[in-house]
Amino acid sequence: MTEDRITLPTSSDVKSAAKSLSSHAIRTPLLEAPILNKFLGGRLLVKAEAVQRTGSFKFRGAYNKISRLSDIEKTAGVVAFSSGNHAQGVAHASQLLDVPATIVMPADAPNIKLNNTQAYGATIVTYDRGNEDREKIGRDIAKKTGATLIKPFDDPEIIAGQGTVGLEIIEQSVNRGVRPNAVVVPVGGGGLIAGIGLGLDLQKTSIPLFGVEPEDFDDTRRSLLSDRREINLPERTSICDSLLAESPGELTFALNRARLEDCLTVSDREVQTAMAAAFAHFKIVVEPGGAVALAAVLSGHISCQNRCIVVVVSGGNVDPQTFAASIDAVEWNALPLVTG
Amino acid sequence: MTEDRITLPTSSDVKSAAKSLSSHAIRTPLLEAPILNKFLGGRLLVKAEAVQRTGSFKFRGAYNKISRLSDIEKTAGVVAFSSGNHAQGVAHASQLLDVPATIVMPADAPNIKLNNTQAYGATIVTYDRGNEDREKIGRDIAKKTGATLIKPFDDPEIIAGQGTVGLEIIEQSVNRGVRPNAVVVPVGGGGLIAGIGLGLDLQKTSIPLFGVEPEDFDDTRRSLLSDRREINLPERTSICDSLLAESPGELTFALNRARLEDCLTVSDREVQTAMAAAFAHFKIVVEPGGAVALAAVLSGHISCQNRCIVVVVSGGNVDPQTFAASIDAVEWNALPLVTG
Repeated sequence: MTEDRITLPTSSDVKSAAKSLSSHAIRTPLLEAPILNKFLGGRLLVKAEAVQRTGSFKFRGAYNKISRLSDIEKTAGVVAFSSGNHAQGVAHASQLLDVPATIVMPADAPNIKLNNTQAYGATIVTYDRGNEDREKIGRDIAKKTGATLIKPFDDPEIIAGQGTVGLEIIEQSVNRGVRPNAVVVPVGGGGLIAGIGLGLDLQKTSIPLFGVEPEDFDDTRRSLLSDRREINLPERTSICDSLLAESPGELTFALNRARLEDCLTVSDREVQTAMAAAFAHFKIVVEPGGAVALAAVLSGHISCQNRCIVVVVSGGNVDPQTFAASIDAVEWNALPLVTG
Repeated sequence: MTEDRITLPTSSDVKSAAKSLSSHAIRTPLLEAPILNKFLGGRLLVKAEAVQRTGSFKFRGAYNKISRLSDIEKTAGVVAFSSGNHAQGVAHASQLLDVPATIVMPADAPNIKLNNTQAYGATIVTYDRGNEDREKIGRDIAKKTGATLIKPFDDPEIIAGQGTVGLEIIEQSVNRGVRPNAVVVPVGGGGLIAGIGLGLDLQKTSIPLFGVEPEDFDDTRRSLLSDRREINLPERTSICDSLLAESPGELTFALNRARLEDCLTVSDREVQTAMAAAFAHFKIVVEPGGAVALAAVLSGHISCQNRCIVVVVSGGNVDPQTFAASIDAVEWNALPLVTG
């Protein structure tokens, strides 16, 4: 496939996705915590996508994509490989649209994830992480059954669906009478931020857009610097399990290289503090990967001083042990974490 | 003061409060968790008032009340006695409206609460729980400074402000294309549920309304039975610190005796399970008192089977230790708590 055959989604695709999603996705709130604002010397607005159906923004893209399949494609069903938020988004969107879904998951995935994906009505096919290739299994199922493969981020309709987050940020800011100086978004494969860029561009004046990655999974940051798609170095770890894509997507990078001001990184420790701050100030449950953009602001990598910054909190699927450890890891006697 | 001098708020006061609050209160989302719905055999919608400014619905009533003071009254300031959600609601609403606020709090209140209320810009006056009467201190300050006393629930404009929760429930249900079979609300002094009753009545067909109290603080339940205002028995305890009002208010009971179907009770254990379910399924932080209505549904006291039930989650101001203990107290291997 040659480079010029790429079809990039546009802002009007986001508008159209918003119509498809209007009575299905939760219009997540834009939250504000006065005590935190005071501490930051500005205004921080949090787009709380953790409270979206299935606990993350992934539902938006999955629903938009699957709802646009033809009747014949819908009957043949969909297939996805994921053990995380994309799996739950695809499973639940398929359930609502009455489309059979098969999710390819590692046999050793936590029971809780297998059970959940099944509870959303999907058929689970497990594979051995050591010996088998999930992409091949996914492709084989697609070939045999005629099912459509639903990619996690590198698809125009997935990107357009995630972009509805950006459109809502604009609408909710206007309602609030504020104009954001920047929007800051977690980056894994880059689908969410690519879509948000398109959504924000439905407003005439362009709003600067920043990505944030875990410090050892900074493929997008390095790709922006080298202007080609870099891959993450092997054997790195991060608590941000939802942001560990190997490299930027073809479509997402084509959009992001043109739109992003910059991509920053945060440490696991900064992420834990952000999770605790979200607990204390916004009363929301945020998973590690969902907290990186908030972490970038709270740790001062992006300043709020005399400005209005919108941060996207992208998901809340975290187990109770990890969550309890995060709210335990911070110093509760010091503002701005203190609100109990 | 004779009984007939009581002025009860009406549904049109709620409409008017909604106008005052429109660009100040968060329009909290109506959340839904498909896996939980499946388990319950019906549809459960959660009005997530925990993510309201200051972490509880109290901001609504406080803002509505204080915004309606005359300019002279605003200059003289306001006073309230509370160590909890009402204090934070009054402090922050005053801050936004540029009205000086004095909050009377026990000297031994947790530092975190003293700090927070101060961070919202209020002046704190402490008293000795053993020797001093906070109501007298409040009245003395009001007398000396001309400040207006902001009661926690027994005030028409406070009730009307809380009622905007009910109005939003109707609007959001209509948008979702559903008609709730019942609305279930936590009850302390009864201001929230009284207002919600008025808000719901802006729709023509009446929706049944249920209150929920902690099992040893069932003053409203007993008052509905005896048709007079009962007080809570001494030396009882509950983890629901935000629902420990001594008895129903005069205004709130006058409204609630006419409107409520029933008032139910839940145990501390049921409350902890509901807090854990809110964490797992809705990704929100709920304080014990905020979780009682959800607890009544999850423990089967109010059935969701083939019905649509709206539950109000009224606040999220809980310290990390209490929260961690609650999500620790449940069995995570069993659905419907499992979502991690």
